[in-house]
Amino acid sequence: MISIPTIKRFPSYLRLLRQYKEEGKHWVSATHLAKELGLTPIQVRKDMAGTGVEGKPKVGFEIESLISAIICNLGWDTPTNAILVGAGHLGGALARYDGFATYGLHIVALFDADPAKKGLTVGNKVVKAMEEMESYIKKHAISIAVVAVPADVAQEVVDHLVEVGIKAIWNFAPKDLRLPPEVVVERTDLATSFAVLSAKFRRTFEGDIDCVER
Amino acid sequence: MISIPTIKRFPSYLRLLRQYKEEGKHWVSATHLAKELGLTPIQVRKDMAGTGVEGKPKVGFEIESLISAIICNLGWDTPTNAILVGAGHLGGALARYDGFATYGLHIVALFDADPAKKGLTVGNKVVKAMEEMESYIKKHAISIAVVAVPADVAQEVVDHLVEVGIKAIWNFAPKDLRLPPEVVVERTDLATSFAVLSAKFRRTFEGDIDCVER
Repeated sequence: MISIPTIKRFPSYLRLLRQYKEEGKHWVSATHLAKELGLTPIQVRKDMAGTGVEGKPKVGFEIESLISAIICNLGWDTPTNAILVGAGHLGGALARYDGFATYGLHIVALFDADPAKKGLTVGNKVVKAMEEMESYIKKHAISIAVVAVPADVAQEVVDHLVEVGIKAIWNFAPKDLRLPPEVVVERTDLATSFAVLSAKFRRTFEGDIDCVER
Repeated sequence: MISIPTIKRFPSYLRLLRQYKEEGKHWVSATHLAKELGLTPIQVRKDMAGTGVEGKPKVGFEIESLISAIICNLGWDTPTNAILVGAGHLGGALARYDGFATYGLHIVALFDADPAKKGLTVGNKVVKAMEEMESYIKKHAISIAVVAVPADVAQEVVDHLVEVGIKAIWNFAPKDLRLPPEVVVERTDLATSFAVLSAKFRRTFEGDIDCVER
């Protein structure tokens, strides 16, 4: 079982290894990878052990084998079709973002609760009504949903998603969701990231501030 | 000094408190907030202590005071002007995303290294050349940069940003950056989030897979 921290580093390894492959390289050492990614060689060897690929003395790891093993472990070797729920500001941006394809993620349909948005084209996808979701998910055997709805409706939306058969949710809604344990969830909250950045910034450059009038 | 985990929860509190305020409420208890956000009342009381606002027996916390104190602690009470570097897929999506304004972040200019992109309009901002960045940052006293450039140029780009006076970086580039300790950095990596989601999904629903041919 590969640890989550190792999985989090896999995309960085993958990008670097693909770059080496393009440059015509065939072998890479743990020390070299460590240096490039700002990790310790011990950490890199542990991560590589997780891929199942064994290194060879003197030459290190075969780049081609590492690439295939990492892609396979991430589940990126088979394209993943997902639906996107929410065609608001963030949902619209995600629908237009075509970088997901790099890791095998294809947003195949876009849903929104607002009847005024139905039929609009966002990032070459036509917005569908929520009522069409269940039949779409079943017809196309969709397991993954990207959720970018407002916080106050997020719980209701994901409850419905689970009900109609969704098994994994990538949640961009700024809300902690309550979900059955068998549903896989990962959260990306831009407000939280910016909160940390701006609070750290205020602290570092403006010093302690008393935010309460007494 | 407020802890980072508390700061990460502040945006969720804020959204809920603003909703209560709209509903005409004036006071809220820690128990109530805890229940709504899936936290323990003890955790909520600790977080509220961080805001500097004191609760009152029986009635709890004054919603209005909590809202102001959280906004102040996050540094969201003064609008933050930032530049965005990178007008590719993700940069373009971020430039078009207008939800940042909710937390006082305004992307005031967009830069890209590709001469072919110079002058194009993305999300009602005109793409500027990298050469114009230094004077722009100085003229408009910009301290924060949102970085959405490809991984292989990210280090070079942020080195330049720091050189010309940027003090905080929100990094969307899938790359661990090496930066001077006084520069504040926060990373949002979509590939990493999706890696975790898809690896968990594969594990949960497809069982252990041997990714190496032997």
